[in-house]
Amino acid sequence: MAETANEYAEPKSWRAPKSSQRLAHVLAQPILSGEVAPGERLPNEQEMMARYGAGRPTVREALRLLETRGLIVLKTGPGGGPIVRRPPKASLSEALSLVLQIEGASFRDVTDARTALEPMIARRAAERVSDRQLDELDASIAALRANPGDHEVFVAQNQRFHTLIAEAAQSVVLDVFVNTLHAIADGVRVGVQYSARKQAAIADAHEAIVDALRARDPDRAEAAMREHLAEAERYWRHRYPELMSRPVQWTY
Amino acid sequence: MAETANEYAEPKSWRAPKSSQRLAHVLAQPILSGEVAPGERLPNEQEMMARYGAGRPTVREALRLLETRGLIVLKTGPGGGPIVRRPPKASLSEALSLVLQIEGASFRDVTDARTALEPMIARRAAERVSDRQLDELDASIAALRANPGDHEVFVAQNQRFHTLIAEAAQSVVLDVFVNTLHAIADGVRVGVQYSARKQAAIADAHEAIVDALRARDPDRAEAAMREHLAEAERYWRHRYPELMSRPVQWTY
Repeated sequence: MAETANEYAEPKSWRAPKSSQRLAHVLAQPILSGEVAPGERLPNEQEMMARYGAGRPTVREALRLLETRGLIVLKTGPGGGPIVRRPPKASLSEALSLVLQIEGASFRDVTDARTALEPMIARRAAERVSDRQLDELDASIAALRANPGDHEVFVAQNQRFHTLIAEAAQSVVLDVFVNTLHAIADGVRVGVQYSARKQAAIADAHEAIVDALRARDPDRAEAAMREHLAEAERYWRHRYPELMSRPVQWTY
Repeated sequence: MAETANEYAEPKSWRAPKSSQRLAHVLAQPILSGEVAPGERLPNEQEMMARYGAGRPTVREALRLLETRGLIVLKTGPGGGPIVRRPPKASLSEALSLVLQIEGASFRDVTDARTALEPMIARRAAERVSDRQLDELDASIAALRANPGDHEVFVAQNQRFHTLIAEAAQSVVLDVFVNTLHAIADGVRVGVQYSARKQAAIADAHEAIVDALRARDPDRAEAAMREHLAEAERYWRHRYPELMSRPVQWTY
């Protein structure tokens, strides 16, 4: 294997994977494969030590690693022990926001990436969207239009619209990326406001995108999404310039 | 705040942030701001308990959280304690690969996302690339051509080429994404081989991209990268069909 410049691929070279890390991955397999369901209890410390021939500190560290990755909860007290759970996707936002803070990323960098990603997602959605999904997109726009100026409805329906399109694109990875970015740098959460008139313009933009999706026209869907996001970015830059240079911070 | 469908933004709702999580974030600030440099030692457990009015279990758990996030190493023995380090970017690949495994993503999903991302990166690179970066890209192609059929050189220079373009795009987030995806699903690491003839064709494709970058032509750079990746994907699908359906696995 030649040397590469990809630091993301580097093993934790300051030391070899510890036995607790290896044990954690062994213990994770039945959880990840769905053999053990959320809510079920894993064997207790004593049983694990016997089954894997590992010392107590190794077992404890392995369980703690699984807990920080969100795969189990360690319940204390009688009847406690390691309980399997479904890891919250928010743990990915946490890891990404940490790396972005270290890299010195700003809100602008994050919106920039969304502006690059979402047109590609719209393009794929035009090739794969189902009739049911088109109906749901229509419903989202109708809800927006039925509640002009209602901030809560706007936030919920705007989020729903973009999530539906990511789902329609059937691209797990892009879906994960764009939702993670939205979680890290959500304009609304940090105070961006939209007037009733602005909200109506956004409903129009959503409608243009859905029209292109319904026509199964990838070029038009991509262009409509690009225009929609460029418009949003212009608005942010104009009205909230200080927001765009704000550094991304480690969330938890 | 209205309810949204974004699970990535959900707080860990099964319980409020624990005091150890809050303490971990307080302790992380001087590390993230660069006030404390890698290699330096943080105060010991006793001092932290006194300074933050926290119990020993809380301090220990906070330190362990920082250790699993790669911000410190806990050295044991005399002269030990929490030592600051630069978190390895590989920790992000770990978190992403875990989410992707849970979501049932395949290698095909990952290459699909790279195929969507890299043309956008090439577009941005055409707008921002420096003369020095163009020279480095030329050097990478020259090294490829000087060693026909050498697998090690090919892997290193291919990686270098794509990393240089991501850097030239000056988009921290896209750079992080594409490098993370490459770390998670690197064809070469799982056995994809390229003949000398194939490698020469890749050098040609790289040259077409660099020509477009040198002309500062975003449309042409995007199209050239799109064609390059589409060709690579056709090759993978044709020669390694079983690889494309392989599920992404949690790496460590």
